[in-house]
Amino acid sequence: MNNFIFQNSTKLIFGKNTEDSVGSEIKNYSNKILLHYGGGSIIKTGLYNKITKSLKDSGVEFIELSGVKPNPRVSLVREGIDICRKENIDFILAVGGGSVIDSSKAIAAGVNYAGDVWDLYTGTPINHECLKLATVLTIPAAGSETSSGSVITNEDGLYKRALGYPTLRPQFSILNPELTFTLPKYQTSCGVADMLAHVMERYFTNQTNVDLTDRLCEATMKTIIDNGLRLMKNPNDYDARAEIMLAGTVAHNDSLNMGRDGDWASHDIEHELSGIYDIAHGAGLSIIFPAWMKYVYKNNINRFAQFGNRVFNLDINLNNPEETALHAIEKLEEFFKAMELPIRFKDAKLPEDRIDEMSKKLVHHKDHVGGFLPIREKDALKILKLAL
Amino acid sequence: MNNFIFQNSTKLIFGKNTEDSVGSEIKNYSNKILLHYGGGSIIKTGLYNKITKSLKDSGVEFIELSGVKPNPRVSLVREGIDICRKENIDFILAVGGGSVIDSSKAIAAGVNYAGDVWDLYTGTPINHECLKLATVLTIPAAGSETSSGSVITNEDGLYKRALGYPTLRPQFSILNPELTFTLPKYQTSCGVADMLAHVMERYFTNQTNVDLTDRLCEATMKTIIDNGLRLMKNPNDYDARAEIMLAGTVAHNDSLNMGRDGDWASHDIEHELSGIYDIAHGAGLSIIFPAWMKYVYKNNINRFAQFGNRVFNLDINLNNPEETALHAIEKLEEFFKAMELPIRFKDAKLPEDRIDEMSKKLVHHKDHVGGFLPIREKDALKILKLAL
Repeated sequence: MNNFIFQNSTKLIFGKNTEDSVGSEIKNYSNKILLHYGGGSIIKTGLYNKITKSLKDSGVEFIELSGVKPNPRVSLVREGIDICRKENIDFILAVGGGSVIDSSKAIAAGVNYAGDVWDLYTGTPINHECLKLATVLTIPAAGSETSSGSVITNEDGLYKRALGYPTLRPQFSILNPELTFTLPKYQTSCGVADMLAHVMERYFTNQTNVDLTDRLCEATMKTIIDNGLRLMKNPNDYDARAEIMLAGTVAHNDSLNMGRDGDWASHDIEHELSGIYDIAHGAGLSIIFPAWMKYVYKNNINRFAQFGNRVFNLDINLNNPEETALHAIEKLEEFFKAMELPIRFKDAKLPEDRIDEMSKKLVHHKDHVGGFLPIREKDALKILKLAL
Repeated sequence: MNNFIFQNSTKLIFGKNTEDSVGSEIKNYSNKILLHYGGGSIIKTGLYNKITKSLKDSGVEFIELSGVKPNPRVSLVREGIDICRKENIDFILAVGGGSVIDSSKAIAAGVNYAGDVWDLYTGTPINHECLKLATVLTIPAAGSETSSGSVITNEDGLYKRALGYPTLRPQFSILNPELTFTLPKYQTSCGVADMLAHVMERYFTNQTNVDLTDRLCEATMKTIIDNGLRLMKNPNDYDARAEIMLAGTVAHNDSLNMGRDGDWASHDIEHELSGIYDIAHGAGLSIIFPAWMKYVYKNNINRFAQFGNRVFNLDINLNNPEETALHAIEKLEEFFKAMELPIRFKDAKLPEDRIDEMSKKLVHHKDHVGGFLPIREKDALKILKLAL
């Protein structure tokens, strides 16, 4: 086990009707906030009315900025930064999924930075105070509700880049599983793939002696798989919605990577995909992850065999653990298919003609991505070919 | 799943040599602290010198209060409160195990309270600010290093009572598994029993639809059992020490009880035992827990069968799940025996003549203890008889 520091202070407020407390919770931090959200869905479901009523009841003034799209764009972030500066706003409430939260974090990071916010996503370190933020989560997927990370897309060149900074963790996050009943099936599935991928990125390591976090990862993956399938049968199953919502948070709150290194190549490759094609991140991951696995599993067959054994209940063929490893990858593909997710470019009707470009952009200004096995341009190209 | 609020802000600083950072970490909070510890062991191992050097190097002044004993006493707490008031101290550093940390929390809770600190352990609510505290952990067991709880014994009547309050969670806790190499075998085993019990108290619930936390509990229990046994063979196995130390924290940081009710009757009954006899808490638990299980398992045979299946890898006898449930309890007893812990009063050479008194004191001023099955005086007496 590596030495590590872990701290995650986000207050998790979980369960039915918890969004009613948003005003009184925010009142502890601010009297004037930016209310940041996507589009019509929170208005259609009535959530917008509940949130704004709670804010008004608590005497919290709010300026609105809507229009966040999946794969959130830096241009809207810049708009949010301008509003916060002009209106003297020191707190942001994100109501939505990972895109809205990540966009809010980018605004929070940019307001007190003199340069352009995109700098912070391309290596410029943060030496200033970020605004505080909170979330009301409507899509369990990205884990951004308690994470320190944010992923933003720059329309100029369609670069999708990540920023991580400790004080970008929300002060509190409100998670009501009932708010996810209205999610379309495809979006539910994409969320399930995303959170499963967050655990797998942490799970696939060459480290040994990481027993507890291995087992915590396996516990979370089994729960995601079981309850994801349950939701395919009944999207209004509160208990399954609650398990998925909680698992999505646990998957990305950094408790599962205490003392271990992760991989993250699949995420990086997927960011090239959804940066260009605007495919949902989860659907990109269900395409990339199995291909990555096929390309790298020989690097550590035992780990893939353990994955098959402990997550998919496969017996390990000790005379030929490779068989178990490959069987595990098949089981993962079967799961994604059962969730009605694409596992190949062609399933998502993506063209094949830009995989060279993606492989190049992936390692732009760096030697490689990935911790389990270093992935360079030529490796990325082979992985993308396996995914066609 | 129940509605819940979860927040645990303690910064965990984990790994080799991490105690060297104690001075610089404390400097973020205070220039003058109470250094609270037990007795000779931290001096003998050289830890005292490392800690005080780090404090001096960072310019942190410290007043010492040593003498904390297992099952920490309220009299020493009162002494600590007097020192903090007299010396104008606003931060406490606990160096030791759960007893030292719990004693520190009691001091932290008592300094700004006008009455006697014992009131806070007998129902008087906290309406004042507690001092901040931090820990350098030397015994993985109680989980007090990130928990909000504290257990103190009142010598006057030998009452052992618990207090829980959110701001009693340490600001940071330093966990270096190497510091546990010198723990005597018996103390290591008692710690293992204590942390396993913390998970079991959370695991034995009548709630259904708590998939994720069930599995996270099982992951933690398996890790504790595997690595506990590893330490019986080689107490200097860093990796096993690290797993046990991390598991002890995870067991009691409240992440395993998100959205579920626990039991805690075994802990309550054990507190009567160790309140009177000064037996190590972990050894008391290895006596009480199997007896409690034998008394209550019929209330929810499936849960005990699942425990046997998922923690001890027993096949479930679907025609007779009671057989699996009973087998699971046997396996737990076998584990405690392999850890060289007592599982009956007679193993610990405890007399039998005060079990009536313990059963009475257990429910003093309350109707019952326990969430899985209500335990009243007559039930406690039967459980204690099963433990003789």
